[in-house]
Amino acid sequence: MSSEHIDTSGNVLVIGSGLIGTSVALGLTAQGRKVFLSDIDPAALTSAVQVSGAKPFKNESISLVVVATPPAKVAVVMYQAAIDHPDAVITDVASVKVSIFNELNDLGTTAWDRIVGGHPMAGREVSGAVGAQGNLFLDRPWVLSTTPETSEAAIESVKEMVKALGAFPVARTVEEHDQAVALISHTPQVVATVLAGELMDAESSQIELAGQGIRDTIRIAGSDAALWTEILSENSDYVATRITHVAESLLEFAAALNSGDRQAITDKLDRGSKGRDRLPGKHGATSQRTAVLAVRLDDKPGELARLFTVAAQAQVNLEDVRIDHSLGHPTGLVELSVTPVAIPKLETALVAANFLVIS
Amino acid sequence: MSSEHIDTSGNVLVIGSGLIGTSVALGLTAQGRKVFLSDIDPAALTSAVQVSGAKPFKNESISLVVVATPPAKVAVVMYQAAIDHPDAVITDVASVKVSIFNELNDLGTTAWDRIVGGHPMAGREVSGAVGAQGNLFLDRPWVLSTTPETSEAAIESVKEMVKALGAFPVARTVEEHDQAVALISHTPQVVATVLAGELMDAESSQIELAGQGIRDTIRIAGSDAALWTEILSENSDYVATRITHVAESLLEFAAALNSGDRQAITDKLDRGSKGRDRLPGKHGATSQRTAVLAVRLDDKPGELARLFTVAAQAQVNLEDVRIDHSLGHPTGLVELSVTPVAIPKLETALVAANFLVIS
Repeated sequence: MSSEHIDTSGNVLVIGSGLIGTSVALGLTAQGRKVFLSDIDPAALTSAVQVSGAKPFKNESISLVVVATPPAKVAVVMYQAAIDHPDAVITDVASVKVSIFNELNDLGTTAWDRIVGGHPMAGREVSGAVGAQGNLFLDRPWVLSTTPETSEAAIESVKEMVKALGAFPVARTVEEHDQAVALISHTPQVVATVLAGELMDAESSQIELAGQGIRDTIRIAGSDAALWTEILSENSDYVATRITHVAESLLEFAAALNSGDRQAITDKLDRGSKGRDRLPGKHGATSQRTAVLAVRLDDKPGELARLFTVAAQAQVNLEDVRIDHSLGHPTGLVELSVTPVAIPKLETALVAANFLVIS
Repeated sequence: MSSEHIDTSGNVLVIGSGLIGTSVALGLTAQGRKVFLSDIDPAALTSAVQVSGAKPFKNESISLVVVATPPAKVAVVMYQAAIDHPDAVITDVASVKVSIFNELNDLGTTAWDRIVGGHPMAGREVSGAVGAQGNLFLDRPWVLSTTPETSEAAIESVKEMVKALGAFPVARTVEEHDQAVALISHTPQVVATVLAGELMDAESSQIELAGQGIRDTIRIAGSDAALWTEILSENSDYVATRITHVAESLLEFAAALNSGDRQAITDKLDRGSKGRDRLPGKHGATSQRTAVLAVRLDDKPGELARLFTVAAQAQVNLEDVRIDHSLGHPTGLVELSVTPVAIPKLETALVAANFLVIS
């Protein structure tokens, strides 16, 4: 399609009114775009219309279609949308890309110039329209996948939408995308799930001793099973390869333990520590170890506020905050992460304010 | 030994002045106990004495010995301490128990009536005396392992110390202890390590897309490699068995993905979710899903304080707080976890105070 056919301020149709679709509708409506919603489930549509302020789609002329159905339906819906809206750019929000582009190819779409794959790297542990947030995507990467046939105008149209939602567009091929999410999202999901599953065999007397470590490690295992079945199934090759590699590494670790090869164990622990340090830290900087000051709080309204007021008055900027609730005891341990040089200043201020600083 | 020989207010000797040993010395000194420290490294001893307020051990009469050396040395040091201090109760703080008791047996100790295995379920991602905290153990379980020969008086002596440090004693056999920590501590450590190691193969373009999920899953992979080599080696049988089981479950998951068996995938995801829900929640209650309200903050001193002041004024008690720093963007997303019924009240108060609430 030629660029003069793109109308970046035209009507948007969001198909599928779950968490992501409704959040897109909400965010674009708030930016003044005219947004229409459709969903095969009339009750879901009603709820999403209420939450988002968008209107139910009737027969309006559409310049941008955002397909936000469950992943397994995305390709068919995109294919049909390209037929129903012959002047519209078609994009999606699915967390897999290769299978969708393959299916579009098998369906014989002729709209490749107007198709832009999309995936906002955002989500919540909730689902459905009620969890929608207009700025769910703020400051998040939003992957855009194209083909050589995709027109510049179509890419610009989707980029504009992404920026209107506060996200930043990131270009990846469909293969690059699926490999990346297999590594940084889908494999952690499976690993956390399998580790959490081990607790099903456990005695309560074992679980009682659990601390913050395992709690963090399996946090994401609580996510929606039906949605993740689709996501993992649609990216099964890359995920299966990656989790097989993790399994083999675990078996190597077990072998090192069984043979008492301490050097091999240390090497593997070091490798994990270095891998962890590759994750981007705050503000895109390389991960830096921050210093932690722990404070014991009474568990009542007001104490956290008082704590942060004192920290602010001391002109200390908190990099992170962790509240650790112990088993069976009515107090909270709050860990404040700050740059190491700020520790003495913060500690002095907290002690002066009668906080129980643990040091 | 008979109970009249136990002096629960007598001198304590802590052997080994790392994080745990120095924290024990600091906490007991603060409670008015007379504490002495020894360490084979004179520099480490000097540092621990400074931090804890305890005195270097010379030749004082000792009623309780706490062995806090690296795990591999614990049995030999306990054995010798029982000889050097014939009237003292001997305990330790090592995170493994079976291998230590076996080694004590091999060494031929005759002091079983005075030996109580101990393990405080507390720790930090730092090591050494400088990280010591007098109330590191507050509200934490502290496992005590005994044999049929252990005297009640010896158990009472160690229980008293545990309670003086603010922890609560929990009785487990050495086998129960080692199996439990293999499950809830050592296996998560290995799994997080192996998963984090996968990032060493990754392209920066892949890592750039990482979010909070993988960050939480691999957080503990940054722990001390030398210490963990010892811990895992001393509990190698139980850990190797458990991580082999995790590896087999991952291979089964990969097989389900490869064969497209969606029901099997869903079943595994459900199992993980149920396992996660078995972890104790706040205050020992069964884990309850809390509702989350997200707020976008300017990244400057004072905003967090203002946020918590508003929450406190609204009489809302925060169950948890998470600060999520996005890649490359100078703002912070703060997630406040509260009971679901408190959400409207909190949201109203925050919006009235001009916070950018994401909903």
